[in-house]
Amino acid sequence: MLTVNAERTIGDLKTLAEFGKFESGVNRRGFTPEDIAARAWLLERMQEAGLDAAIDGAGNVTGKTPGCERYIIIGSHSDTVPKGGWLDGALGVIFGLEIARAWVESAGSAAIGVKAFSFSAEEGRFNGLFGSSIYSGLKSLEQVVESVADDGTVLGDALRKAGYAGRPVAVFDPVRDIACVEAHIEQGPVLEINDRIIGIVTEIVGVGRSQIFFFGKAGHAGTVPMAMRKDAAAAAYEFAVMFADFCHQHCSDSTVWNIGKLRLEPGAYNVTAREAEVFLEYRDSSADILTGINKAIPELAAEAGAKHKVGHKWIPGVNIPPEIMDSNLVDRLEAAAERCNAPRMRMPSGGGHDCMLFAKKVPTAMLFVPSLGGHSHVVAEDTREADIALGIEVLGEFVSDIVENGLPAKSR
Amino acid sequence: MLTVNAERTIGDLKTLAEFGKFESGVNRRGFTPEDIAARAWLLERMQEAGLDAAIDGAGNVTGKTPGCERYIIIGSHSDTVPKGGWLDGALGVIFGLEIARAWVESAGSAAIGVKAFSFSAEEGRFNGLFGSSIYSGLKSLEQVVESVADDGTVLGDALRKAGYAGRPVAVFDPVRDIACVEAHIEQGPVLEINDRIIGIVTEIVGVGRSQIFFFGKAGHAGTVPMAMRKDAAAAAYEFAVMFADFCHQHCSDSTVWNIGKLRLEPGAYNVTAREAEVFLEYRDSSADILTGINKAIPELAAEAGAKHKVGHKWIPGVNIPPEIMDSNLVDRLEAAAERCNAPRMRMPSGGGHDCMLFAKKVPTAMLFVPSLGGHSHVVAEDTREADIALGIEVLGEFVSDIVENGLPAKSR
Repeated sequence: MLTVNAERTIGDLKTLAEFGKFESGVNRRGFTPEDIAARAWLLERMQEAGLDAAIDGAGNVTGKTPGCERYIIIGSHSDTVPKGGWLDGALGVIFGLEIARAWVESAGSAAIGVKAFSFSAEEGRFNGLFGSSIYSGLKSLEQVVESVADDGTVLGDALRKAGYAGRPVAVFDPVRDIACVEAHIEQGPVLEINDRIIGIVTEIVGVGRSQIFFFGKAGHAGTVPMAMRKDAAAAAYEFAVMFADFCHQHCSDSTVWNIGKLRLEPGAYNVTAREAEVFLEYRDSSADILTGINKAIPELAAEAGAKHKVGHKWIPGVNIPPEIMDSNLVDRLEAAAERCNAPRMRMPSGGGHDCMLFAKKVPTAMLFVPSLGGHSHVVAEDTREADIALGIEVLGEFVSDIVENGLPAKSR
Repeated sequence: MLTVNAERTIGDLKTLAEFGKFESGVNRRGFTPEDIAARAWLLERMQEAGLDAAIDGAGNVTGKTPGCERYIIIGSHSDTVPKGGWLDGALGVIFGLEIARAWVESAGSAAIGVKAFSFSAEEGRFNGLFGSSIYSGLKSLEQVVESVADDGTVLGDALRKAGYAGRPVAVFDPVRDIACVEAHIEQGPVLEINDRIIGIVTEIVGVGRSQIFFFGKAGHAGTVPMAMRKDAAAAAYEFAVMFADFCHQHCSDSTVWNIGKLRLEPGAYNVTAREAEVFLEYRDSSADILTGINKAIPELAAEAGAKHKVGHKWIPGVNIPPEIMDSNLVDRLEAAAERCNAPRMRMPSGGGHDCMLFAKKVPTAMLFVPSLGGHSHVVAEDTREADIALGIEVLGEFVSDIVENGLPAKSR
């Protein structure tokens, strides 16, 4: 039985939040000096705890409980979005550290150990999910090393500057890595609104992104009669409303979509738009629904374009399938929450997470704690300390069960 | 009878286009060195023609035929939009010069003379219609001298730098200025599509501008269920489509509108918009229709906001009423075109022009020549030389009629 220390966990979270502290949040993008310093600090905490710890050639920080043949991967990321919150990612990293620490303190001879992780650069300074995509084997370092950040930094240069370049790169071990667990803040309002503390994630929704271009003709907004216009902006607005109508009719209550960015050229009060670029994102836990949306986009774009006599072009972007969490682990996580008397609910994860890259390889589970006001990716992001404490308690209870009772063959 | 010289007119237009030449167009914003040099050149042409010419304290260039008691104001502007065309404004300025020149050469003793104008800074580097608003008395120099251009230039400083500051400021003389005529390129496709060369403007449409704000809540585009969102962008798209539907139902075939600019905050793929700012422009020749639109905007904004659970705010901008051209002058302009065998049509002007500021004071008329492909405010803007030649011929015929036959008392 692992005995976690909630006070120590919260203390470490607060210390980690000092690296790149910004107002009440944190500004610690992947491979910035603040992030590199935070990784070095984490490595020291792991070594201090008696873990076999290292930072590898991809910047992933790993701390393994000593003398184990098999491991549960437990972790998240410690980089943040620009001007982000103190818990997004960090919570799962320190939870991983605490569980490994408790393992060393309480269960130091069990057959199943813990590999605590801080996966590097999850938040998309480069490609998003960088460290976990390397560890999971989804990508090789060579494939992505030329990626360029929005500030012009090349990933390979960032790794060299951090001193990580040239080190061995750790990769998923199909024999020894037997399960994956990630704790995270919810990043949404569902737990709070439902008055629950622990979210048991049933699936991580799939994400599709598309750019839809409309090509019209710039013209004087006073002198060109409406019937003669080719207004790319009007087609974009029409598409946005048509797409929402489509989703309301053909998708589920859990489908979400967003057009949070729209580029208009030339973008003037008194000139009709020559070009409009719609940035569309959509998520669902059903692969069928996502397929239906992908099929509908070019049809709706063609219809909106035809109505406004403008051309259109669809550029499909990322298309990440939904990942179902392991049913045995979901049940056992719920049972662990019950043993801790934690108000709990099953729910999908609307955000993508490092652990999704392991869900097809090993039994994978996720635990959520509430986000106050649903805030996410902003400095206002926060979680009550009592909820953090309950979160690490439930995670400890859950991991204890796996360490003690193992995993059924069918579940793997 | 004034005898115009089309070759000389086109030659002067080509020379004027050298000031600030940019690709096949002109980059000559108001009070830039290129514009100031062009004004000095125009002053010399006026003096050369024997006109009583000056540049005043507002930068307006005026050339009066000598020895006259009364004048027809003929002119336009010689500044351009950034990277604009060679004829927008310039055509009407050189037509004014040519008519005054022809007056001196052919009708030097008539009672009604000509005041040729290049009104300064029409294109909105500062407030738009700057020079004509000063000459017409709509605004005083003191009221606008602190205006700041998008590049940070203060109008008063620009006038000082040009050497115009402190000079006397010419203003409309209700006794001597008896009519106003402006020639201009159409800036739209209507003449070309209807295979006509001369447009006889019946009215200059009124223009309204509005900013409509929607205030929502930024949120993670994956984790916040649709039912809990306050998506300002979705409200903006909805408003745009609702506004178009309203206009199709309640306005006329000649009503035009545009939402060519839309600002979204934070403007990211995966974040719902906290704020949306819609830049709406609409024009019509009916004051009633414009009033109806102004009434509808806050109602539609409220409806779109309520549907998406976001707040809204309407900030009305410019609201320029339509100006009806003088019916006697419209008839006589059409008759002049007929005498020249010019294919012609009556039409509204969808763009605003310097002469609109005089329409309530004196009989005012406008003549259009075609814009090839309807291009306007771009370097591709152009007009066939034969059409320019027919334009100056018709204008000469029209002004001859006024100079010889005067204006009816009722028309004034």
